[in-house]
Amino acid sequence: MFRKLMTFDEARRAIGEQLKPEALSEEEISLLEAYNRVLKEDVVSALDIPPFNRSTVDGYAVKAEDTFGAEENQPAKLGVCGVVNVGEPPRITVAKGEAAEIVTGAPIPEGADAVVMVEDTDREDAQLRVYRAVTKDENVMKKGTDIKKGATVLKAGQVLGASEIGVLAALGLTKVKVFKVPVVAVLSTGGEVTEPGKELPAGKIYDINAYSLSTAVRESGGKPVYLGVIPDDKAELRRALEHALASADMVMTSGGVSVGPRDLTPQIVNSLGKPGVIVCGIAVKPGKPTTIALVGRKPIFSLPGHPTSALLLFHLLARPVIQLMSGRPVTEAKTVKALAATRMFSAKGRRTFVMVNLKRGKSDGLLAEPVETGASGAITTLAKADGFVEIPENQQFIDLGEEITVSLLKDVV
Amino acid sequence: MFRKLMTFDEARRAIGEQLKPEALSEEEISLLEAYNRVLKEDVVSALDIPPFNRSTVDGYAVKAEDTFGAEENQPAKLGVCGVVNVGEPPRITVAKGEAAEIVTGAPIPEGADAVVMVEDTDREDAQLRVYRAVTKDENVMKKGTDIKKGATVLKAGQVLGASEIGVLAALGLTKVKVFKVPVVAVLSTGGEVTEPGKELPAGKIYDINAYSLSTAVRESGGKPVYLGVIPDDKAELRRALEHALASADMVMTSGGVSVGPRDLTPQIVNSLGKPGVIVCGIAVKPGKPTTIALVGRKPIFSLPGHPTSALLLFHLLARPVIQLMSGRPVTEAKTVKALAATRMFSAKGRRTFVMVNLKRGKSDGLLAEPVETGASGAITTLAKADGFVEIPENQQFIDLGEEITVSLLKDVV
Repeated sequence: MFRKLMTFDEARRAIGEQLKPEALSEEEISLLEAYNRVLKEDVVSALDIPPFNRSTVDGYAVKAEDTFGAEENQPAKLGVCGVVNVGEPPRITVAKGEAAEIVTGAPIPEGADAVVMVEDTDREDAQLRVYRAVTKDENVMKKGTDIKKGATVLKAGQVLGASEIGVLAALGLTKVKVFKVPVVAVLSTGGEVTEPGKELPAGKIYDINAYSLSTAVRESGGKPVYLGVIPDDKAELRRALEHALASADMVMTSGGVSVGPRDLTPQIVNSLGKPGVIVCGIAVKPGKPTTIALVGRKPIFSLPGHPTSALLLFHLLARPVIQLMSGRPVTEAKTVKALAATRMFSAKGRRTFVMVNLKRGKSDGLLAEPVETGASGAITTLAKADGFVEIPENQQFIDLGEEITVSLLKDVV
Repeated sequence: MFRKLMTFDEARRAIGEQLKPEALSEEEISLLEAYNRVLKEDVVSALDIPPFNRSTVDGYAVKAEDTFGAEENQPAKLGVCGVVNVGEPPRITVAKGEAAEIVTGAPIPEGADAVVMVEDTDREDAQLRVYRAVTKDENVMKKGTDIKKGATVLKAGQVLGASEIGVLAALGLTKVKVFKVPVVAVLSTGGEVTEPGKELPAGKIYDINAYSLSTAVRESGGKPVYLGVIPDDKAELRRALEHALASADMVMTSGGVSVGPRDLTPQIVNSLGKPGVIVCGIAVKPGKPTTIALVGRKPIFSLPGHPTSALLLFHLLARPVIQLMSGRPVTEAKTVKALAATRMFSAKGRRTFVMVNLKRGKSDGLLAEPVETGASGAITTLAKADGFVEIPENQQFIDLGEEITVSLLKDVV
């Protein structure tokens, strides 16, 4: 089974058409914990904001018509009838010829329809002189002008930042309905790796992938569950995958299984449930052994064992799935233009991704220099690469000095 | 006291020279929780990686010289002396004329110094034909070539992402020393606001700032402690500030106090400890009433009550302080060039910040259109503004069509 590799585009299509990633169900959480979460439904205001006519300045609430004609040499004379405090309903009414002292944010008292700024007045006891006429509604923020009752203020799918959470608070809310965060079980396989924190047996190296992929899951908006290194055994792997599927919304494995035939992981995965393996090997370099399966609605990504390849394939294929399962828009990697610092060869017939470092070249442009990802640098490449360059299947190489598009893996420029 | 407003640049200088924000002490945390934290110290590898010479291909470990001269028509003939398993120390030694079966990642057995790829061989029982010569060290990743024991692999101050956490795992670590996250107490003052979630009394509006600023603290790398709305009373405010100072590394207030004289907050703050208020009012628009104090090593930021102004001043002045206290580099807002969609006026003698929305203009350029921040839109501006434009103190306006630099508050383009 699964003899023929899929092309990269076919693999992406299979994810879209067969895996069909979509947002999980909702949960209601505290607004204070809602940072970077995704709104489940449109938010409609249950109140007018402001809920009453407010003064936007410090001054005197008046009937506008009482000030008509007032100017520097000919002030309008009004009698101060009281004070309106901020945060309280006004206890006074402004009658013709009267003015009420008012501060910014306080409710406009009955009878008044404008506010004269304190700078434009002069007061002696209860006697007020107004040196500048105001029009109706001047310096008044009217009820509902900021948000009308019934208005949709935020849309489903919006990611909540400081502003959006501020708007929800303005509506008096302390809870908000958001999409659940997809839980992603992360495990490593392979007889050559051992878990960090344990003693390193002769002939083994420490596992990197369960840590780097757990972090990548978090970066993508998921919640990782670290399951560590699974012993190199068919039954153990099966048991681990069953446990992972039961406890998470998605499973991420990396590495191979060294006992038994090469395609042991896909075979086990296929036996766990329908529809089973949908992508088994992709014509890409690196990352050829990548397989993707679906058990019920739960995706299983089996990534390569090489740490940089695993993280790259995660980025290309798994990250968008986690974003969609979070209800988020899929964010494309940011790109920059650069010149190839050397000729970069592709792997014949495979979509090739070359990890690169960016350097400032002459004349302020950027130069992209390949990072060794093969024999040496398996680990340090991870920390060093700024991004990657894509070479299409039908192109042999990128030439020295050619302008290329670099997809960024971190913020570097 | 504090009659004269500081200029914006003076305020920034005062923060740098008097507040002198610096990273807090360290803590050791699990590598799995270390995403987006900041490394406290350089990390030096305690081991060679790989810790032994490894094969980078599937094939046969040989003495390179036994293959010299081998080619398609004239294979070298070797005797297979055994198998090297992955993840185990080799139990065999390769003698002259011998070859040991080996897979990718397995340790090179004693006596061998190169690996022949399986594609270049032909085997019948223990008889191996090698059709391509290899040189010494070919297909071998030598001990320590990825990371040398004693090498510095990560630097203090690096922010930990998937790659960096992968590198730490490679070293066998499960814990890491990072800077503590600054705890920031956030409270609102002002007689006109009430806490979301409570019934809205007549004459009041819901408080926004404690929520939006708490979120902004989180966005900046701090840990907010929400203290809500403090009753409009001098003694209560004093008590709340004392509590905030005792329980946090930094305090963020917003809004005014409507009882007593205008500069009540600075007065109270000044009485809490030395050195006290260092910035009391800034010649900016919006945000003039902003005051900044220091009690011992703990900064107190008192921001304006207007939600958009509070968030803007947070962004301009408080965010860099939180970043420095987290051990992070200060990130400048990303900027884009745009054309002014209308004339924008400055406030005479004050550094003016105009909140704007960006729209695609003709010929693919961006147009910056001011967002109403004053009377109306106090709340919705928060959710709508894409960024802001800065007008220097000595400039009267930005003209319609002028090219301007917009500092982005969110990722919009």
